[in-house]
Amino acid sequence: MPAGRNVYLDHNATTPLHPEVQEAIKEAMPEYGNPSSIHSRGRRARELVEEARERVASFIGAEPAELMFVGSGSEGNNTVLSTITCQGPNCGVGSIENTGLVTTSIEHPCILETSHCLVRKGVKVTTAPVGSEGRLDLDQLDSLITPGTALVSVMLANNETGTLQDIRSISVIAHRAGALMHSDAVQGVGKIPVNVRDLDVDFLTLSAHKLYGPKGVGALYIRSGVPFCPLIHGGHQERGRRAGTENTLGIVGFGKAIETRALEMDDERIRLTSLREMLKSGIESTIPDISFNGSQTETLQTTLNVSFEGAEGESILLYLDMMGVEVSTGSACASGSTDPSHVLVAMGIAPEYMHGSIRMSMGRSTTREDIEYVLEVLPGVIGKLRKMSTTYRRD
Amino acid sequence: MPAGRNVYLDHNATTPLHPEVQEAIKEAMPEYGNPSSIHSRGRRARELVEEARERVASFIGAEPAELMFVGSGSEGNNTVLSTITCQGPNCGVGSIENTGLVTTSIEHPCILETSHCLVRKGVKVTTAPVGSEGRLDLDQLDSLITPGTALVSVMLANNETGTLQDIRSISVIAHRAGALMHSDAVQGVGKIPVNVRDLDVDFLTLSAHKLYGPKGVGALYIRSGVPFCPLIHGGHQERGRRAGTENTLGIVGFGKAIETRALEMDDERIRLTSLREMLKSGIESTIPDISFNGSQTETLQTTLNVSFEGAEGESILLYLDMMGVEVSTGSACASGSTDPSHVLVAMGIAPEYMHGSIRMSMGRSTTREDIEYVLEVLPGVIGKLRKMSTTYRRD
Repeated sequence: MPAGRNVYLDHNATTPLHPEVQEAIKEAMPEYGNPSSIHSRGRRARELVEEARERVASFIGAEPAELMFVGSGSEGNNTVLSTITCQGPNCGVGSIENTGLVTTSIEHPCILETSHCLVRKGVKVTTAPVGSEGRLDLDQLDSLITPGTALVSVMLANNETGTLQDIRSISVIAHRAGALMHSDAVQGVGKIPVNVRDLDVDFLTLSAHKLYGPKGVGALYIRSGVPFCPLIHGGHQERGRRAGTENTLGIVGFGKAIETRALEMDDERIRLTSLREMLKSGIESTIPDISFNGSQTETLQTTLNVSFEGAEGESILLYLDMMGVEVSTGSACASGSTDPSHVLVAMGIAPEYMHGSIRMSMGRSTTREDIEYVLEVLPGVIGKLRKMSTTYRRD
Repeated sequence: MPAGRNVYLDHNATTPLHPEVQEAIKEAMPEYGNPSSIHSRGRRARELVEEARERVASFIGAEPAELMFVGSGSEGNNTVLSTITCQGPNCGVGSIENTGLVTTSIEHPCILETSHCLVRKGVKVTTAPVGSEGRLDLDQLDSLITPGTALVSVMLANNETGTLQDIRSISVIAHRAGALMHSDAVQGVGKIPVNVRDLDVDFLTLSAHKLYGPKGVGALYIRSGVPFCPLIHGGHQERGRRAGTENTLGIVGFGKAIETRALEMDDERIRLTSLREMLKSGIESTIPDISFNGSQTETLQTTLNVSFEGAEGESILLYLDMMGVEVSTGSACASGSTDPSHVLVAMGIAPEYMHGSIRMSMGRSTTREDIEYVLEVLPGVIGKLRKMSTTYRRD
């Protein structure tokens, strides 16, 4: 094992706290008031929360009143989906008459598992398939959305492959049919420009820890005037849309993370696009029998998902970990499972490549030297695993 | 306004971060892995979460596997109540056949508002009344619990008055009728000893920011083997009981807060019991036409709720705030509302005292000098407000 080298290529799972975020959280620690309290200390805490709300809202082109802080991207997504089963105005601010949900086969588990529950509650759930590159066929999607569809939920950027969807066009299709449009943009916001008005979505989910903010805090954009039902009932926090004392330190960190992203994202995009190309062509030129998963043009610049014939993804992960390189096989939220990735299954990836995939996801601390090091060790790792394989042909 | 004196008497709304909690969070900031990732960095983050889980579980006499971290006490309470409307095993680990909920008229809004929604979903909700001291009559409660009762939910300590309920006896009644027992112990844990085995509860909710930990993190005790349905579906986090990447910094802070509480709570209890008595008798001896709300024997030592005839609670609050003393009128979660406190209404407080109540809640930083200062300024504040009152008799 090389002395001390550590290459973290799992930024889609989570990101380190930006140094400025760490400072912002430290500075906010003595300000401990409850933002709901009306005395001075409470009002100061309220100001911290509202300042962060303005920053986050502004970053995605929303009004502050349209942005609600939540505890995770999963909570945001669950909140939107649960709105379909709202039981009337006293459960929220409105109600949705139609009860159909149209989503896709490659969504995050927090959409797919929730949709299984909705089926049990009487909601008609339709799951749109994707093509071999993980992209939706918009004509096919159009045919699945009916007048009974209340909500269309499509992720902006896939967490496992980085593949992007054309959310703006999907919003047009959804709205034409009278449905509301939600996008899980957890992997998109902070990596590529995201504007809720341009995308014309009614709901959009984001998460702080994917963009150098703290874990345990996310946000949900709710377009002004759309029907909404809280998932967590009780106090009047977040305009009555989410009860519970606000995660003030997390929210302060989220606001600062967004502030730094606004300054760094454009340059980072160019730099990481180049590093991704370097990593991709380096693998291509040194390792045979590989396959890149997902669209290679409509993709996050941070993410490279690659399959190696004759090597198990988890073995590659553990071997690379011993070499100081941290990657993942698909989603961290599904790790520990031996099932193949539902995303790769949905894309119809060939069986010999299905179990041999790893996801490498880069971020602001990733350097050229990191990529050089990965390209140095990866061929050896794959070669050794293939030698142990009983199925990989040795010629 | 006296130079710089600040007396924070709103610890039931929220507490300052313990200095050791601040240090623990700072130290954990560089450990940014996703606890679900299986590489080294992920495993280190997992260890931090599990270490905190052991501490919190142990403090309330639970097994670590019985403790689930959540985003707030409100989320914990909503999760328990939503279990009643579980749609079957694929929505969770079990299902509850009976659909009745018995709760009380003095619960936190996150129980009362949620129960309003449950009614709409077909749940029969029965709200037990309380006596003039805010305590449940156990015989009466017994008569309200029927074979159709799935769940009994009673708070351990009231947030507005500090009045305690006899949870252990209520558990006996609930279990005798075949119902599950939940206690919202958000205001109790960290102030008085709480042991889930002694209380014999099936569910218990706690919150970090009420015991010198961070906002945005709580925990739910779920007795091993009881039916449970997640509120937030998706990834396998928290044993499949709550999806979403763990709030690692919040959880680390929670663990440290519990660790310091275990060392400090007993001494603090004695000290604050004495300060409460000093505050109470000081008010009694200097201000006429007052009324202490809630039980004065079965009470949290931290909390004194007092009504002043001829003075509005919110006016007292704002006046005291100008003098550097921060108190509240009832619950922070209900602040901004002009309705009288639902807790005082449920207790049948006399009309002339209903609107003139303030809650003073002490904590580890509260000193004898703080109480002396409050006793120095409070008579003047009440006197001035009474002079402006059109209803208060001047003789």
